Amino acid sequence: IIKGEIPSVRVYENQQILAFADINPITNGHTLIIPKSHAENIWEISGEDLIAIHQASKKISGAMKKILNPEGIAFLQLNGRGVNQVVMHYHLHLIPRETGSSELSMTAWELKSGDMELIKKTAARLAGAIESN
Amino acid sequence: IIKGEIPSVRVYENQQILAFADINPITNGHTLIIPKSHAENIWEISGEDLIAIHQASKKISGAMKKILNPEGIAFLQLNGRGVNQVVMHYHLHLIPRETGSSELSMTAWELKSGDMELIKKTAARLAGAIESN
Repeated sequence: IIKGEIPSVRVYENQQILAFADINPITNGHTLIIPKSHAENIWEISGEDLIAIHQASKKISGAMKKILNPEGIAFLQLNGRGVNQVVMHYHLHLIPRETGSSELSMTAWELKSGDMELIKKTAARLAGAIESN
Repeated sequence: IIKGEIPSVRVYENQQILAFADINPITNGHTLIIPKSHAENIWEISGEDLIAIHQASKKISGAMKKILNPEGIAFLQLNGRGVNQVVMHYHLHLIPRETGSSELSMTAWELKSGDMELIKKTAARLAGAIESN
């Protein structure tokens, strides 16, 4: 994904990190942020990359509020098989959602392909809101 | 808690943040990190405090690995009623756990008092591991 060999729907990018739409979204706007340097988890990621990830998370949360106006955003970041980390590259989930939506699991969720048109449209709107700030 | 008016079981503290044991732990070692300056959520917290929170999270994760050697650590941070944020002060959960433990929910969990002796003992061991680094 970082090398551009696998297409991804970009939300935000800088020298250190890439943020893109989860194509199996739990909710509309579900976004992942990853460091460009490989690090499997919180133990491996550099302090600088960790800061860059979370600075980006604040920018993206602001854009989510503006564009999607969710009633909440869950931040989830799993480290290790013991919490069902499946992709062994550090990634932070940003999951916007509404009050009264069904329960969200941290460790068990169905990977269900999203509507690619909606995913691309929402990602483009988020990207636009970040750039205009 | 920050003012010391409510007793808390401290794991780590610096000028900007306080980390303490969750007294309704989902697992042994469940720790919360909060900024000392009031901020309700990701939209309100300052960039500096957000960095301080995540720098501390890396320190504490290292101590958890050393002391508890969990098979994973889940990071969870909820913003807004839409994701069932209950305490309206920014807080990051660090939840260490083992493979094969039961599913963890992000949005629904039973608040069950933990064993205070175990909570204090684990917090003291984590605090010791952080200080010795």
